[in-house]
Amino acid sequence: MSTKTKITVLKLGGALLEDQEKRDEILTAFAEWDHPKVLVHGGGNTADRLMLQLGIKPQKIEGRRITDQEALDVVTMVYSGLLNKQLVAALQAKGINAVGITGADFNLIKASKRIASTIDYGFVGDVEKVNVRRMYQLLQSGVTPVLAPLTHDGEGQLLNTNADTIASELAQALSRQYDVELIIGMDQCGVLVNPEKADTLLPEMKEETMNIMLENEMISGGMIPKLANGFAALNAGVAKVRLCGTQTLLQEQDCQGTTLCL
Amino acid sequence: MSTKTKITVLKLGGALLEDQEKRDEILTAFAEWDHPKVLVHGGGNTADRLMLQLGIKPQKIEGRRITDQEALDVVTMVYSGLLNKQLVAALQAKGINAVGITGADFNLIKASKRIASTIDYGFVGDVEKVNVRRMYQLLQSGVTPVLAPLTHDGEGQLLNTNADTIASELAQALSRQYDVELIIGMDQCGVLVNPEKADTLLPEMKEETMNIMLENEMISGGMIPKLANGFAALNAGVAKVRLCGTQTLLQEQDCQGTTLCL
Repeated sequence: MSTKTKITVLKLGGALLEDQEKRDEILTAFAEWDHPKVLVHGGGNTADRLMLQLGIKPQKIEGRRITDQEALDVVTMVYSGLLNKQLVAALQAKGINAVGITGADFNLIKASKRIASTIDYGFVGDVEKVNVRRMYQLLQSGVTPVLAPLTHDGEGQLLNTNADTIASELAQALSRQYDVELIIGMDQCGVLVNPEKADTLLPEMKEETMNIMLENEMISGGMIPKLANGFAALNAGVAKVRLCGTQTLLQEQDCQGTTLCL
Repeated sequence: MSTKTKITVLKLGGALLEDQEKRDEILTAFAEWDHPKVLVHGGGNTADRLMLQLGIKPQKIEGRRITDQEALDVVTMVYSGLLNKQLVAALQAKGINAVGITGADFNLIKASKRIASTIDYGFVGDVEKVNVRRMYQLLQSGVTPVLAPLTHDGEGQLLNTNADTIASELAQALSRQYDVELIIGMDQCGVLVNPEKADTLLPEMKEETMNIMLENEMISGGMIPKLANGFAALNAGVAKVRLCGTQTLLQEQDCQGTTLCL
């Protein structure tokens, strides 16, 4: 039995943020958790919409955004501006003292710009270091950090960074001091053997199973980085990692989503 | 002689933020100040440009923005997203541990939506309360807050709030504990008797002078809230209030701008 304090890192992405009513219900549930917690959010769909309004075509390769200067400005506005501050204001209204930040704030997450190989992803950052001391300070002072998926290189450059990766890296860094549960929210209720059928949910999943499913192309798209980041967290000492959908977050079902196992 | 610790609240607005080179020089000077400091920024020109790109016409009455839902989303993106995070990343590169926040973050500034009278300003907030304890905590932990001009009503609503007002209210709240200097940066080098002639600068200015100049329409536009907020701060116990331009901030001239006097 761990004697560490429990903490939950919740990652919310795309569709869960777009539906205002659903978002509010999830934030209400999140606000009621009576242990320290961190929210990490995405916002790719909203960013895509703003880009199209501005006449910029979103460029992606295998679901990953090519982030040139224009795209970086848009994601900075949407992630750390619009969505982040809406989430903070909503949590404040629910009695949670939230602070909305990026990896540049407090020098919280330093990253390096991904080196261009066959693909140049542009201003995309790979996490180098999480300033975990600053996270402890925030959490110990009763604050709930709300993280937008941006980092910086320490030389003045903001970098776009996958929100699942940020959630996983934070969970890993916090696991030295806390008993961390990482919950990766998603549209479907967990990992499904057949994506068309909710009753094919895997309640538990080992890394070997993921590899077999990958080889047989049974998982694809956004599920791949979610699982990869989830197993990276588990292998690095995070106590519990779950991938689950809205119903689970709202405790509308007994379903606990998919728990990753060593 | 005050025994309080010195702190400077610097407000940077519009044109000073738009010129990348000038902005970087000012941030370098700001970073070198070796006492605690707070940066408050505007960004109206950048917000206007984004609105026009999105086919939204900026609506203003006497220089004050009418903030409907569309305009609120734009200023939230531009102020707390794009500009705030660019400033934070730039300061981090200069060795300053900056954190970019709004009044919603940490519940730092609670405001009330301005009641519509003859003019409905929309989602515009009048400051009610500054959470000064949280500011002390940040400053004492060696952090430099960078404030975007947005507040919240505590019920989930973000509100657009004049950056000069935020700087003045913060300076007033901090003056209980600190020896505060409020510097309101502006395009011209200070208050000029004749706006066309830099050699008509008033090195000092009393509130009576402001009133006489107002009656004679010798000051107008954005200068009015700057002076009103400056005198509000001075009257509430802020040790020193100056209105000054870039050259003064960069110490390129002996000119100290215009110092407001009781």
